[in-house]
Amino acid sequence: MRVKRYLENPIITPEMVKPYHEGFEVIGAFNAGVAQYNGEILLVLRVAERPISDDPAIVKAPVFDAKERRVHVFDFRLDDERYDYSDPRVIRDRSTGQLAYLTSLSYLRLARSKDGRHFSIDDTPFVYPSNSMESFGIEDPRVTQMGETYYIYFSAVSLKGIGEVLVSTKDFVSITRHGMIFAPENKDVVLFPEKIGGKYFALHRPVPKGVGDPEIWIAESPDLLHWGNHRHLFGLRKGSWDSRRIGGGAVPIKTKQGWLELYHGADQEDRYSMGAVLLDLYDPGKVIARSREPILKPEAAYEVNGFFANVVFSCGALVEGDRIQLYYGAADQSMALAEFSLAEILDSLSVGVYE
Amino acid sequence: MRVKRYLENPIITPEMVKPYHEGFEVIGAFNAGVAQYNGEILLVLRVAERPISDDPAIVKAPVFDAKERRVHVFDFRLDDERYDYSDPRVIRDRSTGQLAYLTSLSYLRLARSKDGRHFSIDDTPFVYPSNSMESFGIEDPRVTQMGETYYIYFSAVSLKGIGEVLVSTKDFVSITRHGMIFAPENKDVVLFPEKIGGKYFALHRPVPKGVGDPEIWIAESPDLLHWGNHRHLFGLRKGSWDSRRIGGGAVPIKTKQGWLELYHGADQEDRYSMGAVLLDLYDPGKVIARSREPILKPEAAYEVNGFFANVVFSCGALVEGDRIQLYYGAADQSMALAEFSLAEILDSLSVGVYE
Repeated sequence: MRVKRYLENPIITPEMVKPYHEGFEVIGAFNAGVAQYNGEILLVLRVAERPISDDPAIVKAPVFDAKERRVHVFDFRLDDERYDYSDPRVIRDRSTGQLAYLTSLSYLRLARSKDGRHFSIDDTPFVYPSNSMESFGIEDPRVTQMGETYYIYFSAVSLKGIGEVLVSTKDFVSITRHGMIFAPENKDVVLFPEKIGGKYFALHRPVPKGVGDPEIWIAESPDLLHWGNHRHLFGLRKGSWDSRRIGGGAVPIKTKQGWLELYHGADQEDRYSMGAVLLDLYDPGKVIARSREPILKPEAAYEVNGFFANVVFSCGALVEGDRIQLYYGAADQSMALAEFSLAEILDSLSVGVYE
Repeated sequence: MRVKRYLENPIITPEMVKPYHEGFEVIGAFNAGVAQYNGEILLVLRVAERPISDDPAIVKAPVFDAKERRVHVFDFRLDDERYDYSDPRVIRDRSTGQLAYLTSLSYLRLARSKDGRHFSIDDTPFVYPSNSMESFGIEDPRVTQMGETYYIYFSAVSLKGIGEVLVSTKDFVSITRHGMIFAPENKDVVLFPEKIGGKYFALHRPVPKGVGDPEIWIAESPDLLHWGNHRHLFGLRKGSWDSRRIGGGAVPIKTKQGWLELYHGADQEDRYSMGAVLLDLYDPGKVIARSREPILKPEAAYEVNGFFANVVFSCGALVEGDRIQLYYGAADQSMALAEFSLAEILDSLSVGVYE
């Protein structure tokens, strides 16, 4: 598999993004959804902002307050033994093992480009938390275009859980909110770009507690807003690069051979790579073939070093003939771009390794 | 609150149910959905059957094989330290803490009565596992009647997770399967018996892993098959009888004051009681009032002793004027019946304790 990483990578870094919140710094501009609109390539960036702390013994946690429509910042002492600070992204309650706070607040912001490589970034948010189910922020958007409507969906994070919220726009200025379409715990939804057999389809990634793993499911909808007929689609593979966690990545790509989904997988060391799976063109609930090895794994400096090291995580790609331009978040910090041959990815897939 | 337990309680016990599987014993006939059909009162029983073990050092685990359409039985030695047998219902993997097997297989079976107190039980299953997402069985049915159609929904359990499946019937003979309507991890769905403002509504109970608790959410649907606009409705209360886990119970009851939902709550000792919550008649996403104390808690011998002790767990009630007949599972073993005054339940609710 030939992977052509762009020499200008990373194409967007936190330094390029002006903080929106006073007293905050931008620590991530990553995991962007991708759209083509009005002659431009748009990245719907996940921007993560962190309250600046002058005291190295203090960790700060920002929380959006939906009633007051402002962000509160809470201080935590690093020597407070009730909390676990080992993951830089979160503050965990040691007694429950659960997430108690995030160390940054994410929202969505637009980056615009003519050539897909050089971007200018809007000064203000595009989609910002709006209710109590988004109090810890919104993350990892994907964009599916259908006709003139762009459906944008992302993880909404709060103490109530993590679910997937849908909004839509026709002009990337005003948005219509459609509420939470997948209840907690769920992430990594991708909506197929057209109806199949009269129904809309989505991949989604539940995270069950009592039994089951973070694996990829498929669901159906008459209207994109309401989802049913949930079925388990494919799972983790022991000892593999996708042994711990998998989830949908780019919007499924229609090919003659089937729907090609570029998905992410994490291994036991939380190293995130990208692989591919081919789904039946007329029944995407059937897996035809799957990557034995990743098509992209963290190797470049900006992928193996960063806010959360060893991560490549795509939320979108552009396809033109045989050329796939894969936009991806690197190390939960920056955006990067790599080019693939669609035919080479399809050729690399193995049949019968998707159990 | 006056509670009139029937003197004949329990009204159905496992001994009254003939095993369906050869070499199995019935250990539970409980958590039944309730319907009125053709002049009879029907209980859609959850029947749990366990493989008979002659060796006290062996625990057996039944698994439905969807391809072969038969049940396999696996043997586990009690001295096998890889597994935790402390909960009689499940075999847990010590390394992950997750469920590995169930010790019984549940399916649905009909019990029929003219007076609602004396039941005759069908000899064969009514709804039986049918696919790989039901390999550990189907559990805790509820029944919502709309016109001549009875919607029956239940938890489908497998290693892939626990989700909620919907079927429907008009005659309690043939059923139509509608697939999984709430993806893992989810249980304790109740469908409202009519449209409200042009939409169907359901309460559901996700169990998120990373953040959030097993609490009650509400969702909307155009067709009962596809669900969206998920919102968190009400949560656990620290130090209370519903501090650890809550979930919908009986189908919501329409009253002049609002929708009355009789729900279950478990405390830190896994003691299951029943309480009530009142939801806005025109917007069931609004909580008006909630029980401070349970309306029913495990006290009778058949509630405090049994397969899983200290449980009262209702999946359905009959309402006639002011009289509520609450059918409920006792100790994960038998069915019991208690009578309440609707007005007394409504009077007992407190405003402002539902946070």
